[in-house]
Amino acid sequence: MTLTKEGTIIGMKKEKISSAVIRRLPRYYRHLSDLAQSGVVRISSSALGEAMNLTASQIRQDLSCFGEFGQQGYGYNVTNLRDEVANILGMSQMHTAIVMGAGNLGRALIENFRFDLSGFHLTAAFDTDPELIGREIAGTPVYSVDKLEEYLAQNPVSVGVLTVPQNVANSISEQLIAGGVKGIWNFTNSELQISDPHVVVENIHFADSLLALSYWISEVP
Amino acid sequence: MTLTKEGTIIGMKKEKISSAVIRRLPRYYRHLSDLAQSGVVRISSSALGEAMNLTASQIRQDLSCFGEFGQQGYGYNVTNLRDEVANILGMSQMHTAIVMGAGNLGRALIENFRFDLSGFHLTAAFDTDPELIGREIAGTPVYSVDKLEEYLAQNPVSVGVLTVPQNVANSISEQLIAGGVKGIWNFTNSELQISDPHVVVENIHFADSLLALSYWISEVP
Repeated sequence: MTLTKEGTIIGMKKEKISSAVIRRLPRYYRHLSDLAQSGVVRISSSALGEAMNLTASQIRQDLSCFGEFGQQGYGYNVTNLRDEVANILGMSQMHTAIVMGAGNLGRALIENFRFDLSGFHLTAAFDTDPELIGREIAGTPVYSVDKLEEYLAQNPVSVGVLTVPQNVANSISEQLIAGGVKGIWNFTNSELQISDPHVVVENIHFADSLLALSYWISEVP
Repeated sequence: MTLTKEGTIIGMKKEKISSAVIRRLPRYYRHLSDLAQSGVVRISSSALGEAMNLTASQIRQDLSCFGEFGQQGYGYNVTNLRDEVANILGMSQMHTAIVMGAGNLGRALIENFRFDLSGFHLTAAFDTDPELIGREIAGTPVYSVDKLEEYLAQNPVSVGVLTVPQNVANSISEQLIAGGVKGIWNFTNSELQISDPHVVVENIHFADSLLALSYWISEVP
């Protein structure tokens, strides 16, 4: 049930695992955390599947991408599997994040989003507004965007959270990448032109979610 | 290339189409809109697939759920297909939305999210803050939550956007449902207990997105 021996397998497989599987992992983590909190110790793949609206065989197949979990006929140990999934997701790697743009959305994330629950430490925010610079929002210091290069040189940052206006989205991204960030969490709804193939961009498209909802509530055309 | 004859088929199939297909439709819409804006008139399923990181056969399979689009060897007419997808997504059904909770996130959505581009008309916001009630945010009137029942009785609302604190998420949802909303766009990160099986809940889980990003930037454990 440990990953020590599977480490290389994960390494080898990492490039190949489909993004659909990866996108289900946070849901596994969420459901397993809820189950653990409710005191559930052990769960079968079919019961876990029912809670997540997946088939038991899909769950077994998903998890088999990462090694051997659970025992035939015994199901999964909930907290162990939760911790393994957390580990696979990189939640124990001390990732850091900074928020670029402390407008409404940036503030909402700084004040209300629990970065720590995803294994991230939010270290700073950057803005151009003199009213904000030098202050703190919910304990997070706000610096001038002019200080970004200097900050990144001194503080390794894993992820830049992009909540800036669209017209500066690309230039800010380039500054983040030049400063060594590995990932950009992009809320700007603009397609970023990223020159470095090693940098990962994760786009939040609110409209995709609203349009799916629109489909489900719509009358047949 | 019209849906008139396919209408009943859509109706019959609507319940059965997998949510994975539905979740790809907004991406089709987004890419087709971009292509149309770039002046592309016609596109093959393989070229569309390449732009969307899907296989040509997956695209043909997805679209076949909704009827016949495109002609063998001719590809798809971009604007026609975009409009058909928009129609399937219910974008022409004059959906309305209200925002519950005009805190940072609510304000960010009211001020910056283009509801109209998803076919929605944002008609009002509701809050408990006396400072906000009676004012407008970016042209959207803010009313007291106490007036919600009355408002819903007079103004049919398709979707309630839930950006309230977690501890009132369920009670506000119940009020929305009692007032006839068909869908709830849930940003509260709490699992809603919905009594009416006809109401659709669409959850926005920011953490799922950040955790997927965390996976992709992480070192092999």
